[in-house]
Amino acid sequence: MLYGHGDDTFRFPHLRANFSSNICTEADLAPLKAHLATRLSAIENYPEPAADSLAACIARLHGIQPDEVLVTNGATDAIYLIAQAFATDGTYFSTDEPTFSEYADACLLFGLKPQTDADSSAAVRWLCNPNNPDGRIYTSEQVRREAQRSTWLVVDQSYEDYTAAPLLTAREALGVPNLLLLHSLTKSYAVPGLRIGYVTAPAPLIARLKSVSRPWAVNALAVEAGKWLLSHDVRAVPDLDALLAETQRLANALSEVPHLHVSPTATTFMLVCCDTFTAAQLKERLASEHGLLIRDASNFPTLTPHHFRVATQRPDQNDALVAALRTLLSPSADERKF
Amino acid sequence: MLYGHGDDTFRFPHLRANFSSNICTEADLAPLKAHLATRLSAIENYPEPAADSLAACIARLHGIQPDEVLVTNGATDAIYLIAQAFATDGTYFSTDEPTFSEYADACLLFGLKPQTDADSSAAVRWLCNPNNPDGRIYTSEQVRREAQRSTWLVVDQSYEDYTAAPLLTAREALGVPNLLLLHSLTKSYAVPGLRIGYVTAPAPLIARLKSVSRPWAVNALAVEAGKWLLSHDVRAVPDLDALLAETQRLANALSEVPHLHVSPTATTFMLVCCDTFTAAQLKERLASEHGLLIRDASNFPTLTPHHFRVATQRPDQNDALVAALRTLLSPSADERKF
Repeated sequence: MLYGHGDDTFRFPHLRANFSSNICTEADLAPLKAHLATRLSAIENYPEPAADSLAACIARLHGIQPDEVLVTNGATDAIYLIAQAFATDGTYFSTDEPTFSEYADACLLFGLKPQTDADSSAAVRWLCNPNNPDGRIYTSEQVRREAQRSTWLVVDQSYEDYTAAPLLTAREALGVPNLLLLHSLTKSYAVPGLRIGYVTAPAPLIARLKSVSRPWAVNALAVEAGKWLLSHDVRAVPDLDALLAETQRLANALSEVPHLHVSPTATTFMLVCCDTFTAAQLKERLASEHGLLIRDASNFPTLTPHHFRVATQRPDQNDALVAALRTLLSPSADERKF
Repeated sequence: MLYGHGDDTFRFPHLRANFSSNICTEADLAPLKAHLATRLSAIENYPEPAADSLAACIARLHGIQPDEVLVTNGATDAIYLIAQAFATDGTYFSTDEPTFSEYADACLLFGLKPQTDADSSAAVRWLCNPNNPDGRIYTSEQVRREAQRSTWLVVDQSYEDYTAAPLLTAREALGVPNLLLLHSLTKSYAVPGLRIGYVTAPAPLIARLKSVSRPWAVNALAVEAGKWLLSHDVRAVPDLDALLAETQRLANALSEVPHLHVSPTATTFMLVCCDTFTAAQLKERLASEHGLLIRDASNFPTLTPHHFRVATQRPDQNDALVAALRTLLSPSADERKF
């Protein structure tokens, strides 16, 4: 297990703004919390062994069958289950780095070995779409092409609600027999504390995942919350167009800060590289002096100690980040402050 | 994953009493629910990757070190992690059947093969103490002896609060270098919907488990609940002596029902065999006609279709079960009703 993922707010109790998690927190969760407050008795009984009632809701939402859905203890659980279930089929995996490190961690744990040549075939290929940490997008045509050159293709669409780019729907993806699609209620509804993700895939692939899954993996309150969220559809990103526009405004402003280089993004978060100080240094200073938390991205494979990730927040918070970075990185500050 | 564990109350919405789960439900969970209602904002952030703050509370409670504790997504998660982490070390496991079926399921999933000769050595040996489904107890001397004839010994003490028999404490167990002890907040505090278990073991064994564990496996509300429960200690079994006495009264009463045979138990649940009808038949009739849910135990390895498990409930509910079984099993009813 990697230590050093984002959203380590528990280490910094007095924050003004948290740019470290990609999850948009604009959704009003008050109605969900009010609902959960009436359902707390769910803690008194075992949850359904495989969260079947929630799987049925998800299937209805996508217009697919319940046996084409597996609910998991967050999308991370799905990543490990896929690595476990499909590890018997081959010795390679490949990823398009930098990307979410749990794919590699899960594959290595179950004995798969890295396939570094992107053009060679691989038993299991992983795509994060949109990609974490840089917000790249793969078109549906690219995804279908990737499926043709691997035994199994996993497309992690955890951030599917964070882009305006067209992605494969769960229903369309079922037409590709070797494709597993990951989804994250955590991201779509801004509830990372609850741990709810799911896989959509052809029924034989879901059956294979179920053969390695653990009973009662999804907490009863998470099941309650999931059903409520799907029927009320209070999305994490209430106004995607506005948030994407604000992201571009923030990206432009950060690009104008000395020593910062921003990667192009199609989502609401972005990868930034500082050519002087390390991300760890910037993170500590921003948190302790400005109450602003960024994601040190240096532990993403292929990235450097100078990379960090920023998820767009409210305009005033974004302005505060730009101002703080400008203070820390202005030429006169370089040697005095670090 | 096995379907057919107990506590399938979701299939029977109109029950008068639930004997199918071993968990005592006498605890007053209202204060916990009131606390959780004030902490629902925990759903908005990722939980700690490894629930470290809860692990620290558990360590303090037992007088051991935090690195001797691993918090898991229920004790079931711990069973699978142990099978995964220690599966590389051998090809055998042995259990003293009948026992909780997840040990075998988890071991088989990770490639261990069954060792059927109890006197031979095994790489990983599992003991459930008190044992599910029959309530047998292993003495501390027996446990230490078992540890000497296996590479790794796992003792599942999920039901440690459900017996008056002396068991190894977490601190004592640390003196046995190859022993892993499982604990269940689910059982100790009657919160099966939350999914919180933990392992106590020497630090090198915990480190080995952490190397295969998944980040954020424990829901943020479960972490909140766990910390509250440990600091308030509202145990699931408020008066163990009384519940054990009521268990013996129930066992005696069931023994006097025609065709029923009750195994001796040192806990608050018991295994029963009916020499006429199957457990499945009895379960359906008891649920549909009397609103009473029992646990069909026929899917425990080595048990027969005629075995069922009963956990002691309130005296009036226990009397209702005895009366219902007497009605169903009285000599004149045999042929007419089934």
